[in-house]
Amino acid sequence: MDNKCFIGIDSGGTKVSGALFDSNGTILTEDTVLLKGAGGKKAASLMIGLIISLIEHAHYTGKKPVSLGVCIPGIVYQKTGKVWAPNIPDWDDYPLLDDLKRSVGNDLSISIDSDRACYILGETWLGCARGSKDAIFVAVGTGIGAGILMDGKILRGYKDIAGATGWMALQKPYDKKYDTCGCFEYYASGDGIVRTAQEIITKNPDYQGMLNKNNLRAQDVFAAYEEDDPIAIETFDNVIELWGMAVANYVSLFNPEKIIFGGGVFGPGVCFIPRIIKEAEKWAQPIGIKQVTVVHTTLGKNAGLIGAGRLAIMNEKKDI
Amino acid sequence: MDNKCFIGIDSGGTKVSGALFDSNGTILTEDTVLLKGAGGKKAASLMIGLIISLIEHAHYTGKKPVSLGVCIPGIVYQKTGKVWAPNIPDWDDYPLLDDLKRSVGNDLSISIDSDRACYILGETWLGCARGSKDAIFVAVGTGIGAGILMDGKILRGYKDIAGATGWMALQKPYDKKYDTCGCFEYYASGDGIVRTAQEIITKNPDYQGMLNKNNLRAQDVFAAYEEDDPIAIETFDNVIELWGMAVANYVSLFNPEKIIFGGGVFGPGVCFIPRIIKEAEKWAQPIGIKQVTVVHTTLGKNAGLIGAGRLAIMNEKKDI
Repeated sequence: MDNKCFIGIDSGGTKVSGALFDSNGTILTEDTVLLKGAGGKKAASLMIGLIISLIEHAHYTGKKPVSLGVCIPGIVYQKTGKVWAPNIPDWDDYPLLDDLKRSVGNDLSISIDSDRACYILGETWLGCARGSKDAIFVAVGTGIGAGILMDGKILRGYKDIAGATGWMALQKPYDKKYDTCGCFEYYASGDGIVRTAQEIITKNPDYQGMLNKNNLRAQDVFAAYEEDDPIAIETFDNVIELWGMAVANYVSLFNPEKIIFGGGVFGPGVCFIPRIIKEAEKWAQPIGIKQVTVVHTTLGKNAGLIGAGRLAIMNEKKDI
Repeated sequence: MDNKCFIGIDSGGTKVSGALFDSNGTILTEDTVLLKGAGGKKAASLMIGLIISLIEHAHYTGKKPVSLGVCIPGIVYQKTGKVWAPNIPDWDDYPLLDDLKRSVGNDLSISIDSDRACYILGETWLGCARGSKDAIFVAVGTGIGAGILMDGKILRGYKDIAGATGWMALQKPYDKKYDTCGCFEYYASGDGIVRTAQEIITKNPDYQGMLNKNNLRAQDVFAAYEEDDPIAIETFDNVIELWGMAVANYVSLFNPEKIIFGGGVFGPGVCFIPRIIKEAEKWAQPIGIKQVTVVHTTLGKNAGLIGAGRLAIMNEKKDI
């Protein structure tokens, strides 16, 4: 009887979640620890505490944990095992893999990957792109990143920072305002939706609607769109055009089977997917656009945790 | 003593070139056959004749040919071995692999790939990106395509048409004129340079310079640029901006180590590489742009043939 199990860990800026998985992806148990502002070594210790409690739970239920996958909200340097996570204090080139190896490395094989890599691993395992080997996850949150799976492998690039899709150039000429985040992210991330709406409000000084330029969140613009607010409508006309151009560029460059939209901000954007596809159809390589399916995440907030579970399983199998 | 050798074949619209390679990439002999307008089965027969003569030459010189790599100016469907090559009559879903297997498949293992795949295989083997595992070849000819190598493997996508970079969306809003070739290719391929110059001439009815709108080739625009022609200068200001944006997008999405410009039209464009980099620096993910080197092909017209040779060697080694 197979009594192996696998540990997946999903770390965010405020908490770390963990789960034990069986090899089919069923979650056997789940737990969470709050970071309460901790960073650096303290954050790593809290994560390790969670892992140890999951190991103990596994043993207690007669299971043997064999490998660990960890999802990081940032960049993971595969050669060194160091991580950069802007939302966790002092995790700037932090040697997380060393910490994990020292504490649980005798018992578990360990792999760490970025959130965007985990999202696409999760969705192609148990989500809306199940079984696909060529798929892209577009994570629309405060910023925009892409997790790219090609021929069943995570696309990493030369130094592990592939998928920085927020920097995509989509609208010339260059404007200095793109300096800190990139052109696509400037207009079409969560913060970008706000910036786009603010620019449109500025151009319409007579606007008397529900959106307040100075205290605006992406969710307010989504809510105003539901109420047919003209600024919100114009904002999403612009943002959808850019999302469609981005989809077109993924199609032409990568020829993916699936493109998945998700991330903390995109949720209410699911209704825009038909319009995103329509825009992409104008621009994209015409054969490739017929071969792709554009969908909304089905794993939602669990995509990172489930992706971490898959990372553990792939690592145990030595096939990543 | 190693007496193995490898056959590389590079097919174009007018001729097929072939060579015997040793395992270091040294060309032992080379030969060419003209297609004289032949297509379909006739073109395949001419190619097979060339292969057989190379096999005979190998045997005559005491070498044993073990594998064959073929470079096709179009798309190769890896699962079926069928090819689509717009410049060779009736090579539209043509079963080239079947033909090759029937004639030389008992003696040789065979692999076929697209020209853009072969270019990047060639350049990362013996050209300007030697040893790189993460590199992109931008082929600027009549159209624009990209050969993409990631982690040492050709990026193919779901149905073998990845790298269709000419369709990249770089300039909104969409214009119907992009319908047949894509936005980037419309302005920045060989034909695109001509279209851009023609549009600028149309906007400048008083222009009396050396460029004739109705009978224009890309090389005329390059030549006029050398003479400080204002239309040519404005044309390349536009085209370089787009080439730079394209480089930025490759950097942000793929995090490559090398980006190589080549192709039938780009030659005189080598002087623009510093300006292309400068434009890309504005747009690209700021860490990735520091990690990449942008260069001009060193293999030139031989990139396809040398890439085909490498294809043969990789296939023999069973590691592609």
